[in-house]
Amino acid sequence: MLDNSTKNFIDLVRTRTSCRSYLEKDVPDEAIEQCVEAARLAPSACNKQPCRFIIVKDAELRKRICAEALLPGLPMPWLRQAPVIVALCAEKSVITHTIAPFISGIQYQLIDVGIAGEHFVLQAQELGLGTCWIGWFKAGKARKILTIPGSFQIISLMSLGYPAEEPHFSERLPLEKIMFRDNQMK
Amino acid sequence: MLDNSTKNFIDLVRTRTSCRSYLEKDVPDEAIEQCVEAARLAPSACNKQPCRFIIVKDAELRKRICAEALLPGLPMPWLRQAPVIVALCAEKSVITHTIAPFISGIQYQLIDVGIAGEHFVLQAQELGLGTCWIGWFKAGKARKILTIPGSFQIISLMSLGYPAEEPHFSERLPLEKIMFRDNQMK
Repeated sequence: MLDNSTKNFIDLVRTRTSCRSYLEKDVPDEAIEQCVEAARLAPSACNKQPCRFIIVKDAELRKRICAEALLPGLPMPWLRQAPVIVALCAEKSVITHTIAPFISGIQYQLIDVGIAGEHFVLQAQELGLGTCWIGWFKAGKARKILTIPGSFQIISLMSLGYPAEEPHFSERLPLEKIMFRDNQMK
Repeated sequence: MLDNSTKNFIDLVRTRTSCRSYLEKDVPDEAIEQCVEAARLAPSACNKQPCRFIIVKDAELRKRICAEALLPGLPMPWLRQAPVIVALCAEKSVITHTIAPFISGIQYQLIDVGIAGEHFVLQAQELGLGTCWIGWFKAGKARKILTIPGSFQIISLMSLGYPAEEPHFSERLPLEKIMFRDNQMK
């Protein structure tokens, strides 16, 4: 098991940024497996564990994703550098895809993928790896390139690799804009 | 800043379980603020930061949530013990609520709430606090009880408090069932 951390959680979170520049350096399978292991233990609605991780290292497949599955206005040139592209999918189920949207209107598999995917991201960060969630892409194209079965919904892509840049911290809302007490939300 | 951790990330993740039994012990505001601070730094689609945390400590409001906002078949008696109920909301925006569902079909605010909410959960875990995501509840009732403005979507509830039980680990799928290589998904 890889272990290079002496950080507490808040410091891990503070040093994580979305990485948009990567070294030409392979990511060891052991590191990737540890990221998926962290995601495997994530909570999910009714413990249904819908999240799946497709680890794309194959150069030809990554090239095709960059060439065919990105949106015209969002070319993301840095994605071509990343040695790994991860496709995050959710297994379709009766609860999440049929009952829940009808009863509560909430697609729980999206929350579940957010949770599990962020476990992956934080574990990667601890191992010195950079990641970037990619929400805007052509899901149909990516599905075809990666031959994802129809029983899975492709939800997000993610880049993974060793950062080639200093972290760039995006501004955040102050705490008082996101936290409210009791019935005092405005 | 609170700090009681010497754990690496995978151990933090391994010790987190959904907590369904709580001590009658107040959770200090400082601890709650640190959980929200961890969530504040979470990534979000286009850095829109839609997630909001309503911290419900007021006994009367919590009692009403338990009495009126839970589903008849899912009474969750343990929720009455929890000294804090957190309501996770997402600010409605043109991108997430109008454009995204039309273009990609993905409600990004649900992924964002999953990510930020899990930062909260993991920080709570490090501070010795238990949490449980609660997806199934009457959103309309909860909105009314907490007087949540119409510009916010209420997405999830979460219990928070000091655990009164030994952790109960739910079974997980093995790694090979959730991780696939390149175009080898089955």
